[in-house]
Amino acid sequence: MALIVQKFGGTSVGSIDRIKNVARKAIAEFESGNQVVVAVSAMSGETNRLVALVEEITGFYNKREYDVVVSAGEQVSIGLLATAIESMGYKARSYLGWQVRFRTDGAHSKARIREIESFRIRKDLDAGAIVIVAGFQGIDDDGNITTLGRGGSDTSAVALAAALKADRCDIYTDVDGVYTTDPRIEPKARKMDVISYDEMLEMASLGAKVLQTRSVELAKKYTVPVRVLSSLDPNSTGTMLTKENAMMEQVLVSGVAYDKNEAKITILGVPDHPGVAATLFGILGDAHINVDMIIQNISVQGGTDVTFTVPRTDYAQALKALEEPIKQIGAREVVGDPDIAKISAIGVGMRSHSGVAQTMFKALSQEGINIQMISTSEIKISVVIDEKYTELAVRTLHDAFELDKDAGDRVTG
Amino acid sequence: MALIVQKFGGTSVGSIDRIKNVARKAIAEFESGNQVVVAVSAMSGETNRLVALVEEITGFYNKREYDVVVSAGEQVSIGLLATAIESMGYKARSYLGWQVRFRTDGAHSKARIREIESFRIRKDLDAGAIVIVAGFQGIDDDGNITTLGRGGSDTSAVALAAALKADRCDIYTDVDGVYTTDPRIEPKARKMDVISYDEMLEMASLGAKVLQTRSVELAKKYTVPVRVLSSLDPNSTGTMLTKENAMMEQVLVSGVAYDKNEAKITILGVPDHPGVAATLFGILGDAHINVDMIIQNISVQGGTDVTFTVPRTDYAQALKALEEPIKQIGAREVVGDPDIAKISAIGVGMRSHSGVAQTMFKALSQEGINIQMISTSEIKISVVIDEKYTELAVRTLHDAFELDKDAGDRVTG
Repeated sequence: MALIVQKFGGTSVGSIDRIKNVARKAIAEFESGNQVVVAVSAMSGETNRLVALVEEITGFYNKREYDVVVSAGEQVSIGLLATAIESMGYKARSYLGWQVRFRTDGAHSKARIREIESFRIRKDLDAGAIVIVAGFQGIDDDGNITTLGRGGSDTSAVALAAALKADRCDIYTDVDGVYTTDPRIEPKARKMDVISYDEMLEMASLGAKVLQTRSVELAKKYTVPVRVLSSLDPNSTGTMLTKENAMMEQVLVSGVAYDKNEAKITILGVPDHPGVAATLFGILGDAHINVDMIIQNISVQGGTDVTFTVPRTDYAQALKALEEPIKQIGAREVVGDPDIAKISAIGVGMRSHSGVAQTMFKALSQEGINIQMISTSEIKISVVIDEKYTELAVRTLHDAFELDKDAGDRVTG
Repeated sequence: MALIVQKFGGTSVGSIDRIKNVARKAIAEFESGNQVVVAVSAMSGETNRLVALVEEITGFYNKREYDVVVSAGEQVSIGLLATAIESMGYKARSYLGWQVRFRTDGAHSKARIREIESFRIRKDLDAGAIVIVAGFQGIDDDGNITTLGRGGSDTSAVALAAALKADRCDIYTDVDGVYTTDPRIEPKARKMDVISYDEMLEMASLGAKVLQTRSVELAKKYTVPVRVLSSLDPNSTGTMLTKENAMMEQVLVSGVAYDKNEAKITILGVPDHPGVAATLFGILGDAHINVDMIIQNISVQGGTDVTFTVPRTDYAQALKALEEPIKQIGAREVVGDPDIAKISAIGVGMRSHSGVAQTMFKALSQEGINIQMISTSEIKISVVIDEKYTELAVRTLHDAFELDKDAGDRVTG
């Protein structure tokens, strides 16, 4: 008997008919002899509706109360799913974040999970029930409701799977797996059967919407066997996330991702004193703004320019937060551009090969696409370009790395 | 500095504009130097929407999961109200039933409050915050969400006022107080400035929709000073619930109430053995069906007929629950009629006067209205009649007891 965690997003529970469909999937897994825990999001549109209500109040919001309002969406979907399962003659029990103690820190609207108390869930599983858990939400040390941020239900599911030492975590979504790039942009994109945690992490953090980055980080940390598959296609085999293996090593580049959700900020004329950068990024950290790429050139005449990217939704807040400190540290000016895109080539094979950067830059320049920023990790190369070239750049790189072909048939490097 | 509990129903928080209006009322009370706790219902229509979702699942529902779904409505309204108050520059904190521990029994969808932990609320009040509490919901000993039944927010507010030893509990509603009868039926109905707990209890339990019966029971038990007033009319002085006083004694009948929410069931040919009635009503009790009026005549030829009323919504369930037991105890038949109305005359003055019953029965018979059942308490007389005569009966009795006149000007008895 295996323990399977299933996760269904808002679209999958968007109507009573769809909720019944999810109930049948959970029951099918249960009937095949497994214990089943299901993590669900709010019904599609519901979280947006709740956020709109909060925002209707003069645009102001208190983050604690925001979490109280928006976490109500999952409460409805878990109760409905449990009701649907019970109506089909099976036992089901639903739990909210505070009931099974998804303990988080107190960072409202983007809280991080610390631990999950699993005994209550285990007791119900042992009693033959299918357990339904609200995704996206938790409780802090003071008993306040917290939420994990948009898309947090993936993270809830993987955290549950880790806490319960589940045999598999099936993330049901509206695509049938992870592709070499976005099929809406490049029709030749291919579905991968297997992808490493590291590659998926880069794909997710670089804009592939299939899984939330944090959920992949968690999966990697606890080696949770995560499978991404379609909730619509019953024959979907999906894509399995695994640790690297020898086979993977042969593949140079696995996929191309893009991200239009960042904005670029440059601080001009930063005095070249120790601790200045720490001060600046400390301010952004205090405001819970994530900084992604950072570039700082060598110092010229005692001053330098620092460029970095932040989530586009935090762009205005970041500019405002930096306004005063910039004056205090004596920097000259802050400029920014929200209309950028980040394009990335990802592959564990890069670790042992060179030449990927060259292929990438050459292909882009041949199409006349100017590169504004470059950032690299062991298994990815990202460039920031003008947003309007996004689709062209994706198709160009997919072609350049021959991602439409099976790995064995490729010649690029 | 007084401590005031305010309660606002679904209509009062039915839109963001109305929620802002409620925020201003809470702030006004706070600004006049008082500590303020606000209990709120779900936005109007929301609970119905959630119930409809549950019922869309083949009409089946599991009561535990039903409570999970429907209690989400208040979660949204408390968060929005707290946000609105904060947006106006005041401190506010919202709490769900489980957070301030509205401890209830485990009777899902009609749970009863056992106790409320008030320390968390007091701490916030002492820190200068306006505290918002979700009405209608609680938590049982096993940590499951419970709800108090429709209209339970009144009960939440009064229970809060009792637990906090509040100086007043203001129940805001869409009428400006308690009337001698329903003004929609009898335009001559008069608003009362004061009414005793006992009279209000009878009014509420007999169908006057102003306050939920359980909230009045609680108010009486803990002598909570409850005021019913209009949320729409800023000049509303409302009706105050008080203990009886000498002035009241002079009034014979204070009001006329009606109730179309009951159904009549008669069990024919019940064997006249000890314990048979206990068996029958025990079965209904186990099914959580409240029995109201009960009539049993003297036994004829070893058998008797028992007639009683139940909530109309439980009518079908009651007939079904009795089906088998009726055969086992050897009763002849069950018959019923859902189309009845209960009309009641209420007044603490009845205790020391006779003649009220006579006036009532005579007035009804002059209009040709047949009386099917009669039930009396120290301060009320209720009759069951054919539902179609409801309005006529109400107007007839309002006239007969001269309720349109000030108490001192009346001559009836």
